[in-house]
Amino acid sequence: MSIEFDFDSAMFVLVVGNTKTAEIAGITVAGASEELIKYTPPADAELLYHGRCLSIDSIPATPDGKPTPALISYTALRLTKIPLLVIDSGLMVKPKIPYVTLSAPVGENIAKERAMRKEDVEKVIENGKILGEELSKIVDTIIIGESIPAGTTTAGAVLKALGFEPKVSSSMPNNPVELKTKVINEAVKRVRSKDPIEIISAVGDPVIAGIYGILSGCKKALLAGGTQMVAVANLAKSLGCEFAIATTEFVANDKTADLSLAPCEVFVAKIPLANSRYPGLRAYAEGFVKEGVGAGGMSFVAYQKGIKEDEFLKEIERDYEKIVLGV
Amino acid sequence: MSIEFDFDSAMFVLVVGNTKTAEIAGITVAGASEELIKYTPPADAELLYHGRCLSIDSIPATPDGKPTPALISYTALRLTKIPLLVIDSGLMVKPKIPYVTLSAPVGENIAKERAMRKEDVEKVIENGKILGEELSKIVDTIIIGESIPAGTTTAGAVLKALGFEPKVSSSMPNNPVELKTKVINEAVKRVRSKDPIEIISAVGDPVIAGIYGILSGCKKALLAGGTQMVAVANLAKSLGCEFAIATTEFVANDKTADLSLAPCEVFVAKIPLANSRYPGLRAYAEGFVKEGVGAGGMSFVAYQKGIKEDEFLKEIERDYEKIVLGV
Repeated sequence: MSIEFDFDSAMFVLVVGNTKTAEIAGITVAGASEELIKYTPPADAELLYHGRCLSIDSIPATPDGKPTPALISYTALRLTKIPLLVIDSGLMVKPKIPYVTLSAPVGENIAKERAMRKEDVEKVIENGKILGEELSKIVDTIIIGESIPAGTTTAGAVLKALGFEPKVSSSMPNNPVELKTKVINEAVKRVRSKDPIEIISAVGDPVIAGIYGILSGCKKALLAGGTQMVAVANLAKSLGCEFAIATTEFVANDKTADLSLAPCEVFVAKIPLANSRYPGLRAYAEGFVKEGVGAGGMSFVAYQKGIKEDEFLKEIERDYEKIVLGV
Repeated sequence: MSIEFDFDSAMFVLVVGNTKTAEIAGITVAGASEELIKYTPPADAELLYHGRCLSIDSIPATPDGKPTPALISYTALRLTKIPLLVIDSGLMVKPKIPYVTLSAPVGENIAKERAMRKEDVEKVIENGKILGEELSKIVDTIIIGESIPAGTTTAGAVLKALGFEPKVSSSMPNNPVELKTKVINEAVKRVRSKDPIEIISAVGDPVIAGIYGILSGCKKALLAGGTQMVAVANLAKSLGCEFAIATTEFVANDKTADLSLAPCEVFVAKIPLANSRYPGLRAYAEGFVKEGVGAGGMSFVAYQKGIKEDEFLKEIERDYEKIVLGV
């Protein structure tokens, strides 16, 4: 590693929020139904602390029952004993756990209008910066994960606004690339400059704003995610914070995603879910869900802390049995 | 010290909230006017991060202009570089900074009714416990301060409910002891048992609930405050968390306060404000304000980290000039 991470002095911050971009029919499956999509971020956060969700009856899943990647992060947090802080950056529904708020608005639907007011983005970034500064005083590395349905679409728009031809990953094996591209192309017409704050305000989402803010204040970070973190990394590359990205092999193997746009080192964590006895977990290896809630980054950290792949799979299955199957 | 604190691995959490008990005429001067009292906790929190307040135009002060003890904590935090986390536990007005929320209600006026619903107190304690557990994974010692106008009255009621004959300190040199005693005696009639949750629900306040919750989850804490921390300490003495109290000499010298009720070690920090060239700071030595916002505890920690009393006074005066006098 070119950056020296000390994962014995690390904290995992999960930045959660919503964008109304998720209301576009067919753009995301990060929820069992349209109504449930908005509950996915708070429910993911609750799952990490409690091993169950408090705001909804079951755990977040796709309409056909593929479980949230929060499961994998839950196992990694349990094994590594890394502390967790949940950050509300634009949630529609607040989680029933302690959480830090950055006083962010919910993001608007970028297919229709600008995502957020510039002054709100500036406020969120300032709040994130303060938090990043304070946390950097006690830990070497801040591991940052996200949960925001339709976040790959806003991330794609950010990359496009920065001048890239983005490929973005998806929670579906048949990524609705055409729909996303149409939304992205319309949205970027509203971008007036390549200034990060302008881009986030025009086509981003509150979670991107919050993570950008935290990176403004902190010294060293591991961005735990796929396409969304590639977008954040490109916005944040001049901030002075050292960072790398860590994601799952499922994103890395996704032909519709393009991690090569990352301006930093990218670590890819193998997670042998293909070998699982449970179809819900094998689905990841078949292209469903793929990443989110810092699953790839926290898996990478678990391996760095000496956990072996086979052992990790067993522990994920143990939690799957407890949390999903209730046995 | 009988407890081994490692202040090189410490975090300061400021727990802020409101109780409508502060609306009783004459019970508190923690604000320049009745209307401003509710802004004191968020403004104190803002001051610690920004060196100025965002929710009100000037800094919190008594009606005759004695400044908030947050000034002293601000200096101590600046010198020690200890990280700060602000915890909303029942605020009426949210601060314009990042803060953790425990989803606590505002406390009711204990002169009239029970302070909080039991299920709300349980929820706050559960949230505080999770936070305490997570923070204890990364720091040795959690330093806990408070800001809640009329908090000495609710603390007095808690002590009375526990069977003590409480003496409680005040932000006024002429402590309105008779008024407080009347409120306390009426309030404790509503207490049904000596169970901490029952006592907090009946006559406590949301800040006491939040601190009790954090202590339920953490391993080692320094309670930075006077009478209020004596009340919390008595509620929390069987939780299994190691803790001590640290407060100012101004509380220790207050004949109307009684630190001997503490069930733990009490450290008293000398702060040579009597020698200050500024009347606003000398007022502390004359019995005004005395303590709050963790001022005594953070002063104690600053001394433990090698700062000398005279140097500390100079630095407090420097911040007073910048923040209060604007020079």
